Amino acid sequence: MISFENDYLEGAHEKVLARLIETNMVQESGYGTDSYTKQAQERIKEVIGLPTAEVQLLTGGTQTNQIVIDTMLEPYQGVLAADTGHISTHEAGAIEFTGKKVLTLPSSNGKLSAESVKDYIEVFYNDANHDHMVFPGMVYISFPTEYGTLYSKQELEQLSAVCKAYQIPLFIDGARLGYGLASDYSDVTIADIAQLSDVFYIGGTKIGALCGEAVVFTSNNMPKHFVTRIKQHGALLAKGRLLGVQFLELFTDNLYFEISQHAIKMAQKLRTSFVNKGYQLYIDSSTNQQFFIVHNDKLKELQTKIKFSIWEQYDATHTIIRFVTSWATTEENIAKIDALI
Amino acid sequence: MISFENDYLEGAHEKVLARLIETNMVQESGYGTDSYTKQAQERIKEVIGLPTAEVQLLTGGTQTNQIVIDTMLEPYQGVLAADTGHISTHEAGAIEFTGKKVLTLPSSNGKLSAESVKDYIEVFYNDANHDHMVFPGMVYISFPTEYGTLYSKQELEQLSAVCKAYQIPLFIDGARLGYGLASDYSDVTIADIAQLSDVFYIGGTKIGALCGEAVVFTSNNMPKHFVTRIKQHGALLAKGRLLGVQFLELFTDNLYFEISQHAIKMAQKLRTSFVNKGYQLYIDSSTNQQFFIVHNDKLKELQTKIKFSIWEQYDATHTIIRFVTSWATTEENIAKIDALI
Amino acid sequence: MISFENDYLEGAHEKVLARLIETNMVQESGYGTDSYTKQAQERIKEVIGLPTAEVQLLTGGTQTNQIVIDTMLEPYQGVLAADTGHISTHEAGAIEFTGKKVLTLPSSNGKLSAESVKDYIEVFYNDANHDHMVFPGMVYISFPTEYGTLYSKQELEQLSAVCKAYQIPLFIDGARLGYGLASDYSDVTIADIAQLSDVFYIGGTKIGALCGEAVVFTSNNMPKHFVTRIKQHGALLAKGRLLGVQFLELFTDNLYFEISQHAIKMAQKLRTSFVNKGYQLYIDSSTNQQFFIVHNDKLKELQTKIKFSIWEQYDATHTIIRFVTSWATTEENIAKIDALI
Amino acid sequence: MISFENDYLEGAHEKVLARLIETNMVQESGYGTDSYTKQAQERIKEVIGLPTAEVQLLTGGTQTNQIVIDTMLEPYQGVLAADTGHISTHEAGAIEFTGKKVLTLPSSNGKLSAESVKDYIEVFYNDANHDHMVFPGMVYISFPTEYGTLYSKQELEQLSAVCKAYQIPLFIDGARLGYGLASDYSDVTIADIAQLSDVFYIGGTKIGALCGEAVVFTSNNMPKHFVTRIKQHGALLAKGRLLGVQFLELFTDNLYFEISQHAIKMAQKLRTSFVNKGYQLYIDSSTNQQFFIVHNDKLKELQTKIKFSIWEQYDATHTIIRFVTSWATTEENIAKIDALI
Repeated sequence: MISFENDYLEGAHEKVLARLIETNMVQESGYGTDSYTKQAQERIKEVIGLPTAEVQLLTGGTQTNQIVIDTMLEPYQGVLAADTGHISTHEAGAIEFTGKKVLTLPSSNGKLSAESVKDYIEVFYNDANHDHMVFPGMVYISFPTEYGTLYSKQELEQLSAVCKAYQIPLFIDGARLGYGLASDYSDVTIADIAQLSDVFYIGGTKIGALCGEAVVFTSNNMPKHFVTRIKQHGALLAKGRLLGVQFLELFTDNLYFEISQHAIKMAQKLRTSFVNKGYQLYIDSSTNQQFFIVHNDKLKELQTKIKFSIWEQYDATHTIIRFVTSWATTEENIAKIDALI
Repeated sequence: MISFENDYLEGAHEKVLARLIETNMVQESGYGTDSYTKQAQERIKEVIGLPTAEVQLLTGGTQTNQIVIDTMLEPYQGVLAADTGHISTHEAGAIEFTGKKVLTLPSSNGKLSAESVKDYIEVFYNDANHDHMVFPGMVYISFPTEYGTLYSKQELEQLSAVCKAYQIPLFIDGARLGYGLASDYSDVTIADIAQLSDVFYIGGTKIGALCGEAVVFTSNNMPKHFVTRIKQHGALLAKGRLLGVQFLELFTDNLYFEISQHAIKMAQKLRTSFVNKGYQLYIDSSTNQQFFIVHNDKLKELQTKIKFSIWEQYDATHTIIRFVTSWATTEENIAKIDALI
Repeated sequence: MISFENDYLEGAHEKVLARLIETNMVQESGYGTDSYTKQAQERIKEVIGLPTAEVQLLTGGTQTNQIVIDTMLEPYQGVLAADTGHISTHEAGAIEFTGKKVLTLPSSNGKLSAESVKDYIEVFYNDANHDHMVFPGMVYISFPTEYGTLYSKQELEQLSAVCKAYQIPLFIDGARLGYGLASDYSDVTIADIAQLSDVFYIGGTKIGALCGEAVVFTSNNMPKHFVTRIKQHGALLAKGRLLGVQFLELFTDNLYFEISQHAIKMAQKLRTSFVNKGYQLYIDSSTNQQFFIVHNDKLKELQTKIKFSIWEQYDATHTIIRFVTSWATTEENIAKIDALI
Repeated sequence: MISFENDYLEGAHEKVLARLIETNMVQESGYGTDSYTKQAQERIKEVIGLPTAEVQLLTGGTQTNQIVIDTMLEPYQGVLAADTGHISTHEAGAIEFTGKKVLTLPSSNGKLSAESVKDYIEVFYNDANHDHMVFPGMVYISFPTEYGTLYSKQELEQLSAVCKAYQIPLFIDGARLGYGLASDYSDVTIADIAQLSDVFYIGGTKIGALCGEAVVFTSNNMPKHFVTRIKQHGALLAKGRLLGVQFLELFTDNLYFEISQHAIKMAQKLRTSFVNKGYQLYIDSSTNQQFFIVHNDKLKELQTKIKFSIWEQYDATHTIIRFVTSWATTEENIAKIDALI
């Protein structure tokens, strides 16, 4: 049965695999000191237009969120996030596991507003008892969000300005960064992300790699002895080359951006099919995740033909479902969908 | 200047002090193995009517919340609490410091409803991805709440029933337990608290002691090697007698309940004064914390005469203020208030 | 320059890579629920002769040690290990990061004796103040050890008996398990490891895989909600298939054991070369790590020709060096060594 | 039965109690902002001769060690301590509970040498793989040690010099500080302690107080937002006055030092009695802890008459026992001992 359940259904992009095969027997030093990792780091710095950036490669998204947040916060600080943010809900307490509190703010379409962040911080510092509370020490947003929505460049600039004003870092979770940047409705470039955030990561797992996320510290703010801290989190790969080779290939000849665009094109076709068939959109997403509201009878019928995700209950008789495309989605499967729904 | 800022302004009740003096030079073993602690534990079990209960004495409220929650939760679990609960807001992340997540639910007048707890748990278990989320592993409520309000016996029974149904403990934070039980509007006894909760604590710091909270495990559910875990939290007093003697006295001749009643009587008088002078109540509290809405001009005037707490902004021109009585509040000061406001 | 620095210099065994390529575009569900992982788990259970075992695949060695120890210990317990054990020295505090203490015991040739474990535990329980100490809650050993040495079957039986007597688990770190089992001097089989330990892992990173360690719980003792806890540690791969496919191939047609034997054969040849040239062995290792004592002048000369590890200072004028072979070591390079040393 | 088990058998010195009674009904603000705490802090700074010091009052010894070490170390660092140090053995893993590793060094008579510290640090930094290890980030010593022994001023100067050279703090655990300073064999003053350490604490629990330890940061190095971090550890007393009043009295009219001298005088008398009766000293202690080696038959006899501690097994037929004096030891009881042993 065709699956649109998520964007990590297949292995790696063929070019990424080819590079792994090609480099396989070269002897390299371990723990991220290999030549491929170094080349990948250099390539990423070029592509984001920030020669002074510091890049480290990690294995997965939850791990990256945990390590970035844990290592960048002071112990008396927590991280501000949308109540729908991945770290607020779906990471099994991985942030709290390292002793850090997620301070949730109401969100709209999965997004945090600069104003709500500013208000929270001002109320905090105006509270005479704030020494008895967790200090807001970072703003976490995802681009695109868990609902497939995007921050505009202006929204990012506003968030960035608030963070600068209060001297706390803005962290952008880019597990699906490529899919956000590739959207026709995005006015944001990867250079903007690098300019406006203090730290962000470029998701590989969902965009062409077997595994891997590239964390970018944009302003000489990589935590001291970061490699030791990665190791302390149990996250330092002996064969760091596995990540290095993959990111090197993804950032060769624009591959990362091309395969991201492919996914967006597939998502738009899929969305058009659903809309044409009269499905109701739950949210207006221009990225690779599409959400529809279906009657529970229809839901059952669809489940016999296609694999997709149940997002959440909409009302007593309707359910929100999610379809996801990726670098690996074929035109053929998109065509089949039209017949199946 | 007279202060009504909180209920920990003075030292200890004179009888408690007297008992400390009287027992001072008796040689006793350390770390809670002294004879006074043992007697206090026995007295508490009698008073709550639960001979099989297990009682441990700790030093302060945040410490007690941290230790109870950390030691009773499994590592994959978090604690459900009102978004206004003390552990959600004012404990500097002490719960998260031990790796546990506070799962907040909307509250009404500082209270959690059994229904919202039930809904949360059911949605959780119905979510196919709940393995990627923090398991609800305990319900935390405070009696009285941070807003001075009280759960009725029926509300506690409902919460208890939900907890039993899902086999998670109900934890009652009783930092101000005496003041809740002493309220004319409470239909709950300390025996009810013991019957309906799985673990609760009897606050001493705010009710007559220099420091001290008595944790009661009601159903043979004290965590294994609890003393070792208290020590691990840095919370095991060498001179455990300090806590033992104080609780022994508080639970001798009904002292704890009598001094609690005194505070409630003072609070009612104070409230009457305010109401008679036309002040608007923010919330209808029948315990020792009273909340009023005042115009900011009035606020400034009052601040020149009396010490009290700013609770929070009400609107652009009004502020919520809090007055607190305690075992130590004098009739004399209550009388003075009437002239000052 | 040829390198014998460690056993993670190259990528993956060609058959492992081939399997990754072959399965690459098959759609599979995430987080370890894919069909390859399931097949790998079944194969491992067959090979170790324990149908009731529970197998989970993780990414790296430090991560595996951290997760196994953290999830199997009670909070009041620590793990007993040789003072030369990997978790005692070279994991950047990853064990302590999760709140657990490593209780070190003196070692001999990298090994712990059953007697020293027994003595430690007995002294602990005889100490009237042991509630103020960390309870011994697990025994950690590595097979082979960090010095390339091996426990005999009898030694393992003795350690297992002590652990059983005190009801604490025996955990065998098998980062290099294959190389230990393949040694001509080992009388231990993988079935013995499974019978005698409570939990162990089969190292993949150092034996043919890009990454991956297979943890085996041998007696229905996998910690509850283990997947949630892996996620909480930031260690749950979205594409669990990456681990599943690799272990499936490693445990197909005996590959894991064959490539381990190759490494041992290469190590014996290398050792013979060194011995024939008059080098002094630092320790008598029958596995893939070989240690030699060289004069510092000789050291400098060798460093211009071959890459290897400095182990530690031997005396003022001599140094201990380490040469490591692996599944990837070529006969050709072994032949070259003889000319270079 | 008379007890010499430890130095926390009684309550508080009578003058300390009197001060608590006298100040009992004064209204004071909470959490360490009260006027007594402020006065105590000022007095301590005067007495140690360091007007720029920062003083915070905490409740107990393990708590103080945990908080100082946790808040002063960077996350990638551990604390160097004697293998016999309190934090290495008898704090139930309270240091590791906060994620920090205790790095143990061999000790002599309970003491660490500057040389062994220097060697450890040099070997660490010379190790090419030290990024995979825990960085030495603090030196912890106790004065007097767990064996009642004392560092000379020269030894402290040497330790201080090594710490300065490597820019890590020297932390002196002064749970029994007064008893160390009062020894006839000590050439160290409290001003020396303040000059030579980066942080130390003045033990109150064992020297005249019901509870309380005064932590002194000597060089503008109190961790940022320290009050918030104390709260996060569950260690911030609501009635901080309890600690403030006690330390204020202890540092009024030299009380702390006088009662310490009393304990030493009693210890010397007790020691003389034992020596005169032919008991063998286990260690040459000039402070309030005295250790004797007794035959197990004698041990049993003594246990029927006096309470004291079993320290550890000496050999098959002998045991080391500990007698402790304190501010509360009476001449009368010392006289009785002579007849009983």
